[in-house]
Amino acid sequence: MKWVEGGICAPLGFKAGGIHCGIRPNKAKNDLAFIVSDAPCTSAALFTKNAVKAAPVLVNLETVKSRSCRAVFVNSGIANACAPDDLENAYAMRDAGAEALGFRKEEVLVGSTGIIGQRLNIDAVKAGIPVLLKRLEHSAKGSDEAAHAIMTTDKKKKECAVEIELNGKTVRIGGISKGSGMIHPNMGTMLCYITTDCSIDADLLQQMLRDVCNHSFNRISIDGDTSTNDSLIMMANGLAGNETITSKNASYHIMKEALLALCIDLARRMAADGEGAKHLITCEVINAATEEEAERLSKSVVSSSLTKAAVFGNDANWGRVLCALGYSGVQFDYRKVDIRFSSAAGSITVCRRGTGVDFDEELAKRILSEKEVIIQADMKSGEQTAVCWGCDLTYDYVRINGDYRT
Amino acid sequence: MKWVEGGICAPLGFKAGGIHCGIRPNKAKNDLAFIVSDAPCTSAALFTKNAVKAAPVLVNLETVKSRSCRAVFVNSGIANACAPDDLENAYAMRDAGAEALGFRKEEVLVGSTGIIGQRLNIDAVKAGIPVLLKRLEHSAKGSDEAAHAIMTTDKKKKECAVEIELNGKTVRIGGISKGSGMIHPNMGTMLCYITTDCSIDADLLQQMLRDVCNHSFNRISIDGDTSTNDSLIMMANGLAGNETITSKNASYHIMKEALLALCIDLARRMAADGEGAKHLITCEVINAATEEEAERLSKSVVSSSLTKAAVFGNDANWGRVLCALGYSGVQFDYRKVDIRFSSAAGSITVCRRGTGVDFDEELAKRILSEKEVIIQADMKSGEQTAVCWGCDLTYDYVRINGDYRT
Repeated sequence: MKWVEGGICAPLGFKAGGIHCGIRPNKAKNDLAFIVSDAPCTSAALFTKNAVKAAPVLVNLETVKSRSCRAVFVNSGIANACAPDDLENAYAMRDAGAEALGFRKEEVLVGSTGIIGQRLNIDAVKAGIPVLLKRLEHSAKGSDEAAHAIMTTDKKKKECAVEIELNGKTVRIGGISKGSGMIHPNMGTMLCYITTDCSIDADLLQQMLRDVCNHSFNRISIDGDTSTNDSLIMMANGLAGNETITSKNASYHIMKEALLALCIDLARRMAADGEGAKHLITCEVINAATEEEAERLSKSVVSSSLTKAAVFGNDANWGRVLCALGYSGVQFDYRKVDIRFSSAAGSITVCRRGTGVDFDEELAKRILSEKEVIIQADMKSGEQTAVCWGCDLTYDYVRINGDYRT
Repeated sequence: MKWVEGGICAPLGFKAGGIHCGIRPNKAKNDLAFIVSDAPCTSAALFTKNAVKAAPVLVNLETVKSRSCRAVFVNSGIANACAPDDLENAYAMRDAGAEALGFRKEEVLVGSTGIIGQRLNIDAVKAGIPVLLKRLEHSAKGSDEAAHAIMTTDKKKKECAVEIELNGKTVRIGGISKGSGMIHPNMGTMLCYITTDCSIDADLLQQMLRDVCNHSFNRISIDGDTSTNDSLIMMANGLAGNETITSKNASYHIMKEALLALCIDLARRMAADGEGAKHLITCEVINAATEEEAERLSKSVVSSSLTKAAVFGNDANWGRVLCALGYSGVQFDYRKVDIRFSSAAGSITVCRRGTGVDFDEELAKRILSEKEVIIQADMKSGEQTAVCWGCDLTYDYVRINGDYRT
């Protein structure tokens, strides 16, 4: 597997682009994007489990039943959730997109991200379509424009692509995403669109995407916070010419491993770019009794406000880590637990067998001053491991979220 | 029922006091307290569900089996959790307290609150005992000193007392507490000590305390965060001379209602005094299908970092409230939900049937500028109600917790 340029346009036969259509007041910021496959696709999708589902999610839940979506039409600025005429506008957006592309309605998914409760300017969306169509490109530029168009409070665009060989054929996967877990739940949170030229059965693609999501996007930050708009969509157009994957054979596993690497990369970028974040926090729980317990323990640590605030303060406060492990719901003997902080600046054990040990506070401070901080908890209760990612809790998080609507 | 002065010394036959024994560097801050009943007691207790239990909790779990505890011996400054010799020191503290009071070991509970991982200075505790014994008083002053001695980052002492009549006898209940839910989990969080001169069977007292706790302390803030030291202890010495409560009769219910009022009062004070808090947030969920669902919905709102940050910014961001209801795990039709913000400055509906409505932003800002802000969600799915309490997320929370150990 190797990393390549081109984002969602790296796989054969995908074009993309973004424009400013007028949903956002700031004309310098794109707010409308298309991602389109030249050829028919098999598709897979996962959506928010929030009981409050935004209108585009409700429409997509209907559309994805076809398992053959080949275009995504998405706006930022307005979440089109809990807003006047939200459902009508989501249908209108899908139908207008399908008509412009000459596709069936069951082939076009929609997405929205931004403020909840405000009406989507569907006229601006419709007026933007002909302009947007002209901008679509099969190049890195197309992917870049789409990646920028879906950003909200994101500071950096999230885009990557990988290449693998399947029985002598070159296969590529590309992805773009925005937002992150509970870090931006009111913004429409996480949107992620993945393209591939792999040929694969739709049911297997759905299984693969679900498994990979559980080990990547579902392992970034915080306490089950899912927004009203969370969406993960993948389209596979088969143009790589590989033998179609119809069973969990060697090609399936190579493809799955590459998809996992791509999704972990996007997930880590989302955690690192959480609102106001100064640090990416990686929590490795090792030697747990089961993988599920390892994941619960790890998620509890990256979700702990007190641990997040301590990392912001470069404070090696292992008591908070142990406390967060303790309230995760997993039963364990804390008199066995070791805790280590690591980063590019070094590594230090701060708690051994559930008890604090003397450590070099200066070194600890340097370790916690790095951009990525790794917290490792060794449970000594088994052989299972899980890694979750989060970010620190900062003044800027409070500032950004203290008055988001204005 | 009426509110009275005197705190934990309001009931007959309880004395209390606090001193500085030297655990804390700041000599102006008391760090050691006794609460003692003149007569034998029935007792009830609830402790943290965290898998990491502090040493005093482990010792108390053994001691409370007697159901006849009549004294509490508690320090602040050091949590005596995950620290060298923590268990030995907790036993030593209990035994020294019992010896000094002339009580059996099974009659004395211990408590510690403060920094995790550091050794308790047991010599300072022992040396403080004779000084502390001389200070014990059956007066409001004794209660006040004890209430101050258990404070950590609390800005205000939490103390109250109520009086009821049971079959012509005057019965009193008093309580002191410190810290709050997830707001201070690393400090040893919540300690609450309740005294009463009511005569009541120990099993019934335990049931009553558990029920009341579920409707008061378990309804303040945040996401199951329980610390290593959370403790709620109640002692009943029977000196009021009422007919002993041995069944769930009228007296039981009068007593329970008074205890609930007292515990809600303490719980609200803890939420309002959360680290860095500028607002007390009260979330009322009404017309839910079940009380359990109402509670889950309400807790999800007061635990939401985004809702908390919005209240800090005086921002009527109902989208975050709806989103938090949505990820609570409760299934409901959000197209029925109304959301209202209220305070001493007025009341305003901001979302009707799951959709934003136009509202007076100036009035909303005034409502959210009050110290106590009430968020009401009308689920229109049944007849059950629950109220939970929390506080806003502020710059000061991040500052306080960014570098707590130094």
